[in-house]
Amino acid sequence: MNFRAINHTIGSIILLEMAFMLPSLVWCWVDRDGHSALAFGASLLIMGVCAGLFLLVGRRARGSIFAPEGFVTVAMCWIVLSLLGCLPFYISGQIPSYIDALFEVVSGFTTTGASILADPAEMSRGLLFWRSATHWLGGMGILVFMLAILPARQGGALHLMQAESPGPTVSKLTPRLRQTSKILYAIYLALTLACILFLLAGGMSLFDSLCTAFGTAGTGGFGIKADSMASYSPYLQWVVTVFMALFGVNFSVYYLLLLRKVGLAVKDEEVRLYFLILLVAGALIAWDIRDLIPDLSERIRHAYFQVSSIMTTTGFSTVDFDVWPAFSKAILLCLMAVGACAGSTGGGLKVIRLLLMVKSLRRAIRRTLRPSSVQLVRVNGKVVEDDVLHNVSAYLVAYVLILFGSFVVISLDELSLESNISAVFSCFNNIGPGFDAVGPMVNYDCYSGLSKLVLTLDMLLGRLEIFPLLALFSRHSWSRRL
Amino acid sequence: MNFRAINHTIGSIILLEMAFMLPSLVWCWVDRDGHSALAFGASLLIMGVCAGLFLLVGRRARGSIFAPEGFVTVAMCWIVLSLLGCLPFYISGQIPSYIDALFEVVSGFTTTGASILADPAEMSRGLLFWRSATHWLGGMGILVFMLAILPARQGGALHLMQAESPGPTVSKLTPRLRQTSKILYAIYLALTLACILFLLAGGMSLFDSLCTAFGTAGTGGFGIKADSMASYSPYLQWVVTVFMALFGVNFSVYYLLLLRKVGLAVKDEEVRLYFLILLVAGALIAWDIRDLIPDLSERIRHAYFQVSSIMTTTGFSTVDFDVWPAFSKAILLCLMAVGACAGSTGGGLKVIRLLLMVKSLRRAIRRTLRPSSVQLVRVNGKVVEDDVLHNVSAYLVAYVLILFGSFVVISLDELSLESNISAVFSCFNNIGPGFDAVGPMVNYDCYSGLSKLVLTLDMLLGRLEIFPLLALFSRHSWSRRL
Repeated sequence: MNFRAINHTIGSIILLEMAFMLPSLVWCWVDRDGHSALAFGASLLIMGVCAGLFLLVGRRARGSIFAPEGFVTVAMCWIVLSLLGCLPFYISGQIPSYIDALFEVVSGFTTTGASILADPAEMSRGLLFWRSATHWLGGMGILVFMLAILPARQGGALHLMQAESPGPTVSKLTPRLRQTSKILYAIYLALTLACILFLLAGGMSLFDSLCTAFGTAGTGGFGIKADSMASYSPYLQWVVTVFMALFGVNFSVYYLLLLRKVGLAVKDEEVRLYFLILLVAGALIAWDIRDLIPDLSERIRHAYFQVSSIMTTTGFSTVDFDVWPAFSKAILLCLMAVGACAGSTGGGLKVIRLLLMVKSLRRAIRRTLRPSSVQLVRVNGKVVEDDVLHNVSAYLVAYVLILFGSFVVISLDELSLESNISAVFSCFNNIGPGFDAVGPMVNYDCYSGLSKLVLTLDMLLGRLEIFPLLALFSRHSWSRRL
Repeated sequence: MNFRAINHTIGSIILLEMAFMLPSLVWCWVDRDGHSALAFGASLLIMGVCAGLFLLVGRRARGSIFAPEGFVTVAMCWIVLSLLGCLPFYISGQIPSYIDALFEVVSGFTTTGASILADPAEMSRGLLFWRSATHWLGGMGILVFMLAILPARQGGALHLMQAESPGPTVSKLTPRLRQTSKILYAIYLALTLACILFLLAGGMSLFDSLCTAFGTAGTGGFGIKADSMASYSPYLQWVVTVFMALFGVNFSVYYLLLLRKVGLAVKDEEVRLYFLILLVAGALIAWDIRDLIPDLSERIRHAYFQVSSIMTTTGFSTVDFDVWPAFSKAILLCLMAVGACAGSTGGGLKVIRLLLMVKSLRRAIRRTLRPSSVQLVRVNGKVVEDDVLHNVSAYLVAYVLILFGSFVVISLDELSLESNISAVFSCFNNIGPGFDAVGPMVNYDCYSGLSKLVLTLDMLLGRLEIFPLLALFSRHSWSRRL
């Protein structure tokens, strides 16, 4: 285990986090909010000391980062980022409990958007800005960002990117990973700017536009108002609907579009299935809520907003969909599990895994019926290797086991089965709102400290796709023999 | 596709079903119940005609039954058995709707025990006896019974047994399958007789003892009283608790005991895990319900009765566990999913699949951390072949997809999310009761015809472990090229 390299990476990441915290101070200055500024100052001081210590231990780091180290590094970075990132909330006293503050910031970095705040508007704008900024940073991944801007170390980048990027495979847009991460962040930045401009054009204030765009781009979903997006105009709601859907698309498809390979982009099986599910689910829900919302255009708007929000695992809401009929809620629960495309900022199981699962199942049936025939699984015309398929299966197993385990533990709080199942689903798939006690118009403060810790862990497991955190606890990562 | 052989098998199976229907007529005679007797008579007539037609079409059947035919045969047999087996209920008018009657008999054959009857005591004893007898027949499998008693046809038996027996692999107790099925039924019969004797010893009437023993042996769970087992004495409840647990054990372990290979039997990993889960779950629930049931011995009795009933997928109940705390209900929901051992009469995912899933997951993590090392999955010291592991993964995928799909469709009925999730879980895993609207003290009549059909299909899918029914709809089964 290359401890020096790991410590060096963690130290650099803390410095990056500090840099991302600075813009929030602008809003403290605008609002003449000395109290929040002081909290940021104290947090930055503590973070600086930590960064210094990590860099000191990791000085003169040499050698490559191999697979186990990649996993461990990413897991450690995310844990340290969260433990430090929640300090402003805690030190300012605006979230008095450290566990609550940790829940909130992990919810931010993992782009979940589940909150323990009854009314976010009561928080100072500086802190709200930092809260939303964590979405943007967590969406594409902070280590990917580091790879994009820092000089390349020899090797190891692939393992870091593999561990942090969502989906069963890393889409190598170019042979050089540094180039790939630069392209990814460039697309991400351009789309975010476009989103901000469209929001500003609809008359949204600059602060609201920035925070909303961060929540949309990272598919996070922290609202800055107690009613999330309900009080904004239909135009603004449609803008967010469309951009949420766009940020749920595999970014390699945008790269294909940039390269003018429109044919390949349009034929991508995952993206096709993604939009098909979006359209069908929205139509079914719009039909199901016909009695609740008589006006057709309004009904379609609310149906597609919620479908886009849940499927991309953003978690904004325009209505209290907890009061919708059981059929609509059942569809939303399924969308929670599926999630967005791999290589997007969205969470969940990912559409590509669903596709691979269905194709493996078909192959298994054929194999049983005709043991002698050779059956291959193809996506986009390419044969998928058995190793990838095995990992998808293993992922599903881990997914199901973690869901059940968390569900049992948080059931100790005696909330309803509906709340508990949807809370675990929502946190693990990085969505945000669930049903009943954790519905879109309420928050997660109803849970005990233990449950909040379990849900915090679920958010991290969901965002990092389980394996990095499991690797942290495997003795195989830590044994000296490599 | 060997259609003659398939038709011949279906015809023989109908004759067997008719034979199993005859004992019910004894109770009609005892009760001087001409009306029910007439319904049985008419049903037997129709079944006789059907059997004749199938045997006529399938006369001079030759050649072996291969894998696809094995699957299709088993699926067809079960469907035909159900369509005909529900006739006495329907013709007698005691279940006025054919869909309801079909639901009830499929629930019987699949050993689910979910009922649409508000009070089974209102049904005549002849019909009640047939209803419970379906549990006993479905538990070990009617085709396995046929293999045990009919002269062996050349080949094909393995494929039939593979398709009907629960679990990822067939435990071949002896090299000859006919011998194996005879041993299985002998153990089954002996244990059932023991159960009847213990119940009679506790003062239960002969009719109640027989019906209860059938429900216990097949892990079915049809109660003959509206309150299931609540009104019986603590002794009788303990007898049922123990026998339910015994019928959830892999029968090959009993065979090992008969051969005096106690060491091997005791070391079986699946059975060990099964009893470990039973004990821990019971203890946790007994702790959780301490406020509801103050008396310790009563608390332990109810906790272990429900745990044994749910985990073995029987579905009897002594209390209304729907009013238990959320933690206990969460544990019960997990037990529903796991189910009993493979090669037992119980349903669910099976403990061995859970074991294999966890072991594959550990292997996947190790492989990711150390790509170069060779990792094998072992159970009971033997290496598990990759093919078996792939099928377990495929099974989990199909399991999850079917659960979600059924859940969405039955949500159209606008019952609570808790009812819908538990109903699908309960039917698919062949348990019986769920929570809320389908709790242990209520029944499935709250669902619409469409939902009942979906749940009926789920019961069949669960009992036959998905693949035979999927094979029925695969064009690969039906194409002429073999």
